Amino acid sequence: MSVDPAERRARAALTWIVEPETRGLPALVERDGPVETWQRLAAGHPDLAPEGAVALRARSAECRPDDDLDRIQRLGGRFVCPGDDEWPDRLDDLWHAGSHPPFGLWVRGPARLADVTRQSVAIVGSRAASSYGDYMAGELAAGLGCRDWTVVSGGAYGIDGSAHRGALAVGSPTVVVLAGGVDVPYPRGHERLFEQVAREHLVISEAAPGCAPHRARFLVRNRLIAALTRGTVVVEAAARSGALSTAARASGLLRPLLAVPGPVTSTMSAGCHLLIRDRGAVLVCDAEQILEQVAAVGEFLPPEPRGPERPEDRLPPTFRQVLEAVPVRRPAGVARIAMIAGVDEPNAKAALRALAANRLVEKVTGGWRLQPVVRDGEPEARPARSPAAHGAALPPVTGAGDAPQEVLDLGL
Amino acid sequence: MSVDPAERRARAALTWIVEPETRGLPALVERDGPVETWQRLAAGHPDLAPEGAVALRARSAECRPDDDLDRIQRLGGRFVCPGDDEWPDRLDDLWHAGSHPPFGLWVRGPARLADVTRQSVAIVGSRAASSYGDYMAGELAAGLGCRDWTVVSGGAYGIDGSAHRGALAVGSPTVVVLAGGVDVPYPRGHERLFEQVAREHLVISEAAPGCAPHRARFLVRNRLIAALTRGTVVVEAAARSGALSTAARASGLLRPLLAVPGPVTSTMSAGCHLLIRDRGAVLVCDAEQILEQVAAVGEFLPPEPRGPERPEDRLPPTFRQVLEAVPVRRPAGVARIAMIAGVDEPNAKAALRALAANRLVEKVTGGWRLQPVVRDGEPEARPARSPAAHGAALPPVTGAGDAPQEVLDLGL
Repeated sequence: MSVDPAERRARAALTWIVEPETRGLPALVERDGPVETWQRLAAGHPDLAPEGAVALRARSAECRPDDDLDRIQRLGGRFVCPGDDEWPDRLDDLWHAGSHPPFGLWVRGPARLADVTRQSVAIVGSRAASSYGDYMAGELAAGLGCRDWTVVSGGAYGIDGSAHRGALAVGSPTVVVLAGGVDVPYPRGHERLFEQVAREHLVISEAAPGCAPHRARFLVRNRLIAALTRGTVVVEAAARSGALSTAARASGLLRPLLAVPGPVTSTMSAGCHLLIRDRGAVLVCDAEQILEQVAAVGEFLPPEPRGPERPEDRLPPTFRQVLEAVPVRRPAGVARIAMIAGVDEPNAKAALRALAANRLVEKVTGGWRLQPVVRDGEPEARPARSPAAHGAALPPVTGAGDAPQEVLDLGL
Repeated sequence: MSVDPAERRARAALTWIVEPETRGLPALVERDGPVETWQRLAAGHPDLAPEGAVALRARSAECRPDDDLDRIQRLGGRFVCPGDDEWPDRLDDLWHAGSHPPFGLWVRGPARLADVTRQSVAIVGSRAASSYGDYMAGELAAGLGCRDWTVVSGGAYGIDGSAHRGALAVGSPTVVVLAGGVDVPYPRGHERLFEQVAREHLVISEAAPGCAPHRARFLVRNRLIAALTRGTVVVEAAARSGALSTAARASGLLRPLLAVPGPVTSTMSAGCHLLIRDRGAVLVCDAEQILEQVAAVGEFLPPEPRGPERPEDRLPPTFRQVLEAVPVRRPAGVARIAMIAGVDEPNAKAALRALAANRLVEKVTGGWRLQPVVRDGEPEARPARSPAAHGAALPPVTGAGDAPQEVLDLGL
């Protein structure tokens, strides 16, 4: 702890006084330091732009930093400021994004803020999430947790809550960033969730204990969520959602912005699709795809999604052509199969023997035909094979005379 | 009709002979012309690479172009080739994409091929589509149809069928591109659909009448769907789907590739997400977004999706700050509201009067409070207001003491 008690006290006071509208204050603190700024404010000389001066003076007169510091101590928490070991230097990036770091952060929980957020991802989205959104938030959070990454989110119903619960479910760290005081459970229905996170991980806020979570605080809180993390994932967001403000903050900070797609028919995914289409967000489907974007280069190489491999995939091209040319039921001779496959007869014969050894075709009276196989349904049906691959010369020439139930689906 | 009958007959024969595996044939036809190439093939001198020669000779001996031309005429159709008025020159782009245009196209229906495909979009996707995919295919096709754009697709169950039906439902042209002959209804369950499209619009194929739709033909057919259109939309596709081959063809042709997102939890959308993430496909949600990509620049400027506007959105910033500072139930005086809002008292008073005139706040004994309003639930809940915007100085200091049902949601 290298922070002077007077500075800590001044910074605690400043978190109480500052409002999103008092634009001049952070620059003033940067220039004159927190102690001098707070002393002048408390003495009634705010030295700010005229329009904010009156209000700031009034607020300063009501400010009781010692009470707040006592209060956070009674809660088992602490007030963390720049200079403390656990202060996340990453927050300084806010200066380059048209904003400013907090004067300090009110913190409850055993985790060390800088350590726990070093590898962290913000998971944000709508309060009125769909069941799909809640499911995805939980899945992504659990997936990140299993790979030793921390989740950071707000405390709202919907995506925020599902993200924290997904992390808790796998015993992984999660950080709740509240808009009001860390002892103000908003929404009330998440009181037990916050208590658990404060017990096991971290609940933090820029607002002093007891402060109510009013609207402007949600907006400045969103900048904190974006700034604390390596990237922001929007899971669900309506076209006009608070989560889009967090998304904009992440972009402003030049941190990766990611979004989860959903049904076009769901208004809750409209914001995500907007971000992907027009705001440069990367579409992500799982935790690995998130880490591919936010982790160090080369650290993660997620496998490309593939359908299940079929035995035919391993066949040489000629064998596949021959297999394709073999009729389903009525057998055909080697010459005909060779013609249809576009290979010569010796090659066709060799291929047929190899295919028979692999139980893909069989030799019967009159020539060769496919070996009947039973396969489980695959997610995607494929064109069923006609009795002969080239029906034009066969009487009767229909080529499509097979009702689907008569067709053997070889999975080709 | 400027095409010489001998050339038409030769081209008809070549469509029957050519197989996707006979790579040398299109170049040969390009060099020597269709008539000479066909004559030499029929005479047993294929002049091709040795491995294809035997098969080509056998196929040529079985080829009956006059029968096929008679047959398409009996079907009320025609064989269209390069040089015909309705031949789509756009198909020549296939030469620049590692492929080749068809030697000709077998066509049934009243529409003129070049005209109907001039403004056209391919809508493709899985056979085993989900109900979401089928719905989206129909919606997009109908949306394109209403804007005088033609749909082009295959004849499969799932996305293909839904796209054609969506276009038919709004009386708009749609083109079925079959892998087998235009008189081979595959799948059989779509026979009536194909008959309707052939009666009102166009059913086409590169394969001669009577030819069965075997697997290799589906792959070359896909190149045709991509090449006939201004862009390709993949509505649903598993990670390993035939629709991805059409998508690759569109990209190879430097035509816009578009994909519809869906739930990450649906395997049927995995291919679409892959295309958006890794293959440069543009995410599209509706017909306007499709046209924004494929139509001429400036022809379409779709509006950005927005949530509904709220009365508060039109307030000047100071008024909004003051409104935010007004308590829900227990009234507060002007001085306190001014302090919370961070504005001076005269401005706060002026704002309160204006807000009262707009029925957003009311003056009661003891000061000002919010005007009770009843609003329909909005898709996204917003942070409810606490009784006082800044609870720290209020006894008892809870700030979140409101159960949600007690909270007035002003929609802020």
